[in-house]
Amino acid sequence: MTAPPISRYPVPSLDALPEDVRARMLEVQEKAGFIPNVFLTLAHRPEEFRAFFAYHDALMLRDGGLSKAEREMIVVATSGANDCLYCIVAHGAILRIYAKDPLVADQVAVNYRKADVTPRQKAMLAFALKVALHSADIDDDDFASLRGHGFSDEDIWDIGGIAAFFALSNRMADLIAMRPNPEFFLLGRVPRA
Amino acid sequence: MTAPPISRYPVPSLDALPEDVRARMLEVQEKAGFIPNVFLTLAHRPEEFRAFFAYHDALMLRDGGLSKAEREMIVVATSGANDCLYCIVAHGAILRIYAKDPLVADQVAVNYRKADVTPRQKAMLAFALKVALHSADIDDDDFASLRGHGFSDEDIWDIGGIAAFFALSNRMADLIAMRPNPEFFLLGRVPRA
Amino acid sequence: MTAPPISRYPVPSLDALPEDVRARMLEVQEKAGFIPNVFLTLAHRPEEFRAFFAYHDALMLRDGGLSKAEREMIVVATSGANDCLYCIVAHGAILRIYAKDPLVADQVAVNYRKADVTPRQKAMLAFALKVALHSADIDDDDFASLRGHGFSDEDIWDIGGIAAFFALSNRMADLIAMRPNPEFFLLGRVPRA
Amino acid sequence: MTAPPISRYPVPSLDALPEDVRARMLEVQEKAGFIPNVFLTLAHRPEEFRAFFAYHDALMLRDGGLSKAEREMIVVATSGANDCLYCIVAHGAILRIYAKDPLVADQVAVNYRKADVTPRQKAMLAFALKVALHSADIDDDDFASLRGHGFSDEDIWDIGGIAAFFALSNRMADLIAMRPNPEFFLLGRVPRA
Amino acid sequence: MTAPPISRYPVPSLDALPEDVRARMLEVQEKAGFIPNVFLTLAHRPEEFRAFFAYHDALMLRDGGLSKAEREMIVVATSGANDCLYCIVAHGAILRIYAKDPLVADQVAVNYRKADVTPRQKAMLAFALKVALHSADIDDDDFASLRGHGFSDEDIWDIGGIAAFFALSNRMADLIAMRPNPEFFLLGRVPRA
Amino acid sequence: MTAPPISRYPVPSLDALPEDVRARMLEVQEKAGFIPNVFLTLAHRPEEFRAFFAYHDALMLRDGGLSKAEREMIVVATSGANDCLYCIVAHGAILRIYAKDPLVADQVAVNYRKADVTPRQKAMLAFALKVALHSADIDDDDFASLRGHGFSDEDIWDIGGIAAFFALSNRMADLIAMRPNPEFFLLGRVPRA
Repeated sequence: MTAPPISRYPVPSLDALPEDVRARMLEVQEKAGFIPNVFLTLAHRPEEFRAFFAYHDALMLRDGGLSKAEREMIVVATSGANDCLYCIVAHGAILRIYAKDPLVADQVAVNYRKADVTPRQKAMLAFALKVALHSADIDDDDFASLRGHGFSDEDIWDIGGIAAFFALSNRMADLIAMRPNPEFFLLGRVPRA
Repeated sequence: MTAPPISRYPVPSLDALPEDVRARMLEVQEKAGFIPNVFLTLAHRPEEFRAFFAYHDALMLRDGGLSKAEREMIVVATSGANDCLYCIVAHGAILRIYAKDPLVADQVAVNYRKADVTPRQKAMLAFALKVALHSADIDDDDFASLRGHGFSDEDIWDIGGIAAFFALSNRMADLIAMRPNPEFFLLGRVPRA
Repeated sequence: MTAPPISRYPVPSLDALPEDVRARMLEVQEKAGFIPNVFLTLAHRPEEFRAFFAYHDALMLRDGGLSKAEREMIVVATSGANDCLYCIVAHGAILRIYAKDPLVADQVAVNYRKADVTPRQKAMLAFALKVALHSADIDDDDFASLRGHGFSDEDIWDIGGIAAFFALSNRMADLIAMRPNPEFFLLGRVPRA
Repeated sequence: MTAPPISRYPVPSLDALPEDVRARMLEVQEKAGFIPNVFLTLAHRPEEFRAFFAYHDALMLRDGGLSKAEREMIVVATSGANDCLYCIVAHGAILRIYAKDPLVADQVAVNYRKADVTPRQKAMLAFALKVALHSADIDDDDFASLRGHGFSDEDIWDIGGIAAFFALSNRMADLIAMRPNPEFFLLGRVPRA
Repeated sequence: MTAPPISRYPVPSLDALPEDVRARMLEVQEKAGFIPNVFLTLAHRPEEFRAFFAYHDALMLRDGGLSKAEREMIVVATSGANDCLYCIVAHGAILRIYAKDPLVADQVAVNYRKADVTPRQKAMLAFALKVALHSADIDDDDFASLRGHGFSDEDIWDIGGIAAFFALSNRMADLIAMRPNPEFFLLGRVPRA
Repeated sequence: MTAPPISRYPVPSLDALPEDVRARMLEVQEKAGFIPNVFLTLAHRPEEFRAFFAYHDALMLRDGGLSKAEREMIVVATSGANDCLYCIVAHGAILRIYAKDPLVADQVAVNYRKADVTPRQKAMLAFALKVALHSADIDDDDFASLRGHGFSDEDIWDIGGIAAFFALSNRMADLIAMRPNPEFFLLGRVPRA
């Protein structure tokens, strides 16, 4: 059986890519052992590829009050609300690794209220879901409530910005029918020896 | 009376900005006569600013089967569905100018079914709204239907990509309570002498 | 190019109308400089026309605790929630004129939370939207909350009555595809000399 | 036990009413044996009362392609969708009487798909519910489909107009917490000897 | 005219049924004077029939803090929210009989906020509707609030369990298009001599 | 750290259980290697426990046109739509095992349109989701469409019955905050040697 396509659109071969795009892919392959399909599929349009990952890195690698695991929780929870297969599976794997917890990604993807996370993290995820689903209703009370949980205004921008960025990302994944790499489904589920 | 703030977050002074960010602002000011608040407010985080406008330009300035007015229609229709004041007002102005039509922006923002646009444009906007609101339901029938209206697959990526990018943009505007410049409300409504 | 039709139904000529219906139109034409299409299109059925405007006037011209601008805010906010092009455009114009504010109509049509209105007006609009969208959920707490903002019970009837009347009006406009007069789009946007 | 109030607002005594309003009530009392609470409660504002019933009569007593029972079906189905107790109970009774059918009102109030009505009536009710719930989506296909079931354009105005009028009526009933007369619950359920 | 079918599926004759299933039917016929269609239609699959009624009885006949009328209120309110004709009509009849109140069933089916029930019963029904419609949002605050109304944790299981069981029951009724017996429409509406 | 509770309600010890309930648990423990929490938590009420599993077995173990994997797909897809953590995780594991496919459960839980399943299975899941989410809208066209995919009417009862039963099951899991056993998260993900 042939493997199903990873995108509705053509996937460029590594040779055909601009140097910086290919370099980015080889770098992630080096670290992860495989190239996540989001790199391969979005490379169909190198300009958008560059902007996409620049935006991603600005939000996800930024220093600040949110841990890396918390940033991934936001991705997984909002992608869950948007029913985005690629992002749930790929970022679920990353969340499991950062949180060193094999269960939390599935919990957060389905219903953060039932997840093994702190009350502060639940407040963070409730706001992220509001940004994802009802952003026109955001008001000053939301900010006051998050500050009450110890979040700075820059943290709140991070939460909202990540939810907003993955609103874009989820829609792109659905548009092109981006398929998660099989490797992601298992990553972080089994304790390493 | 003091003018209301244009963002929940600090707005940097032009002097304090990195050179490339300031240059971009002066360029748009040169053309438009004023600096749209999306530049001033997002400049609070220069890295995200750069990625945001790089992504915007990659989609909105791209050559292809969609006219500039059609690209703005997608922005206005999806921002209308998301109740995003900044994007409706600012991109409504741009749409009026590109389309040389003082009525179409308000029509498209409220209900594209009642707008003075072509059946092909209605199909385009129906798909853009699906990407904005129900992207998990996108399927091959949507692609077939759009191809039937003469859209190429690259056009469809453009439509979906713009809807996806403004899903991000609308949420950022709501997060920071971005306020539209008063100039936008009137732009393109009065025929130039 | 021929102008698009202003209704899915026949529009009677002024000559063919009953005397009282024509008189009403000439009166509004005298004041506004043109006949709003709601008069021309609903005149297709004179009996309903008379009841419609009698109801409209009873609510909109009534003395009471709400200013004329506030009554129009309710119309614009609920018509925005119902995506009714005619009512947003026509009553948006009237709101701009009564409020002597070129921005408030677009703000209120999209998202009253972001509008330059008072907290009391926001409470008024929140309730109007509840009547428009979820009237079965109205309970005594809503009345208590509005009284806390200084509204009398008669004011609350006014708010709810206007929202209810435009629930009818919005649906009639959608049914017959009522088209707003082009004049409305610009009215009240430019300060008079 | 004292009877619960029939309105959140004061209910005028018959003596205190304007002559025409009182006459209307006595007329309906003569026919029905009791005064439906919609008359008593809306009489709190005689001007709105007059417009309300003039509008009601223009739509419900009009000659045309819809039978009286069909007009009441529209009221009951849309009031069911709006969860309006007064209108379901009062117009359910009237529907049972006009249709000489003790079951149809409860069927139509809950789910017209399961009701003992004709395919033509199902098409009528499907459109009425669209007007009640999603009127912005009405398009030419709806008109074509209804014409295919033998409805004239005037019939379609009737269907949509009744659905629109009861959008108002349902909201007024919810606003004032209008209570149905106990008599309505049983009317038309038992075959008369 | 032939009577409409009571199910989309074959309805077994009493003779053809397993002894225990037939016995159950004769027992209810003895008490009610007729066999409710839920027995006749679900008997198409005796194993599921047995489990269904065992579950029903375990919840509805259980001793505890909820009266029989209150249990039926939960059925009627949640079936109303699910637009299930059979359950509203059949259990509405039972509710009228248990509550000795000819009005409460129609009230609760449409909008419990307007029903002649106690504040404690309104809290019970609000929670039942949450279980019916948004069970993923249930949290500890719901339990705290119900305890504040005097409900024990076992009572809360009863409320939630009944709402959950009729989530199943409503869907089965819709699946097979189960038709309510005509007798139910009138039961409990007329005071017995 | 103590393990989080598996239910909001007391969990009986095996000793304290009725013989048949305990036997059922030991049987599943024998086969699976652990006792799924649904057994332990629902055993708080043995009568409901017995009815629940009798109903479950009648539907899930029944011979017919649906494979065991297909029955589990229905569970996983509808539990995904209901955001039910326990059922997604536990039945996702069972689905992986029956389908001998480590990916399909996550695909179906999030978005069956993107899953590696046949068109016939997509039609089955679309109908199951309609039963789960909008059962009042089921009509004869749904049956015709499923028959066109080769499903018998008994198969359709199976699809709808399973969706209906897990409407109950999902709500019970949310009510008691049933926690999935950690074992389920990994089951069926790694090919057995």
